[in-house]
Amino acid sequence: MEFVEIPEVVILRLPVYVRALTQLTDECISVVSSQQLGAHLQISPAQIRKDLSYFGRFGKQGRGYNVGFLLRELRDILCLDRQWTACLIGVGRLGRAIINYPGFTPESFKIVSAHDHDTSQIGQMIGDLVIQPMSELAESILSKDINIGIVAVPAIHAQEVVDCLVENKVSGILNYAPIVPKVSDNIVLRNIDPVLSLQSMTFYLGKRDGREHIRRA
Amino acid sequence: MEFVEIPEVVILRLPVYVRALTQLTDECISVVSSQQLGAHLQISPAQIRKDLSYFGRFGKQGRGYNVGFLLRELRDILCLDRQWTACLIGVGRLGRAIINYPGFTPESFKIVSAHDHDTSQIGQMIGDLVIQPMSELAESILSKDINIGIVAVPAIHAQEVVDCLVENKVSGILNYAPIVPKVSDNIVLRNIDPVLSLQSMTFYLGKRDGREHIRRA
Repeated sequence: MEFVEIPEVVILRLPVYVRALTQLTDECISVVSSQQLGAHLQISPAQIRKDLSYFGRFGKQGRGYNVGFLLRELRDILCLDRQWTACLIGVGRLGRAIINYPGFTPESFKIVSAHDHDTSQIGQMIGDLVIQPMSELAESILSKDINIGIVAVPAIHAQEVVDCLVENKVSGILNYAPIVPKVSDNIVLRNIDPVLSLQSMTFYLGKRDGREHIRRA
Repeated sequence: MEFVEIPEVVILRLPVYVRALTQLTDECISVVSSQQLGAHLQISPAQIRKDLSYFGRFGKQGRGYNVGFLLRELRDILCLDRQWTACLIGVGRLGRAIINYPGFTPESFKIVSAHDHDTSQIGQMIGDLVIQPMSELAESILSKDINIGIVAVPAIHAQEVVDCLVENKVSGILNYAPIVPKVSDNIVLRNIDPVLSLQSMTFYLGKRDGREHIRRA
């Protein structure tokens, strides 16, 4: 046995496979080929086989993957077989949309605490959570065993909020603020940033207008 | 001169460089080395030099990059020197947070039309937009020269909405629904999906609990 560093791009694709396999399970499909999975996800079959090969041999040549088995294995690899708890910092319009987003809980993620520094909001209810002051963040993280911090504050406050979460031993940060906070290597940071997504889109959209990008040799 | 296919991961990083260079400009810093930029962005200097080399020679060995020049070039490459117009489909809580997000307009993206199939919402104002029915989408796209569709509808409706946008010649889709819609190769699709981000995060968080992932050789 040999330890292998798995590229982050591979890890980023695994949840996409989990979602597709979950859908196949719902449709009572029990075997899927890398070709079928690839066509569904618009990823090449060779890429899928290579990605999965980091974690073992899941399929037999020409026989396809056992959907249920592969799904259980991938969920296990991604540690989705437990409930993860998160706190939300920033309960403005975006924060409220996040709290009310129905997609987290069925996927093993539960927001168990909401904090804001705006004193006018403290004590208000959102869903079944009471908005708490920032001064109670450390206590919430400790008492509710919070693993993940969701940051939905304005850009200028994001770094200090991230620093505060990290000081309190939260090691997963989902950041919605439009900056890339600085964190040390042991922190897992994911940025949700629609502007960056749009700006990398227009590279391709602009080309449609007859502009081509070439290497200036 | 030679045409080169630029890897998508490189294109995805260019907006991050644009943001950092904009910040340096705001701070009146006129020259930056790949080391400084790398330290700021937590990307290796070699990676930055390689990424930029696809587009030409921007820096002189040992001299660093001219911030203003590099910023203008990258903005030009990404086609950010024009205003892009977008329509929003789905004006629930998430859609409303998107419309009110202050980050789009300063970055050359403007939402110019909002549509929903919920008749009780039609005619309501959000910001300076009137919510319109889906039946007026084609007309909005044509009359307002809309390039980008922002999809904020429930998962079950997302594919039909994306198909409708594509039929009406929108070739950039920013999808917030928790599915990956199927689109043809000429459509540029970006998915904003916090659950996928969280699920790739827990792979690393779970390892902290003493679990290690190994290749089964």
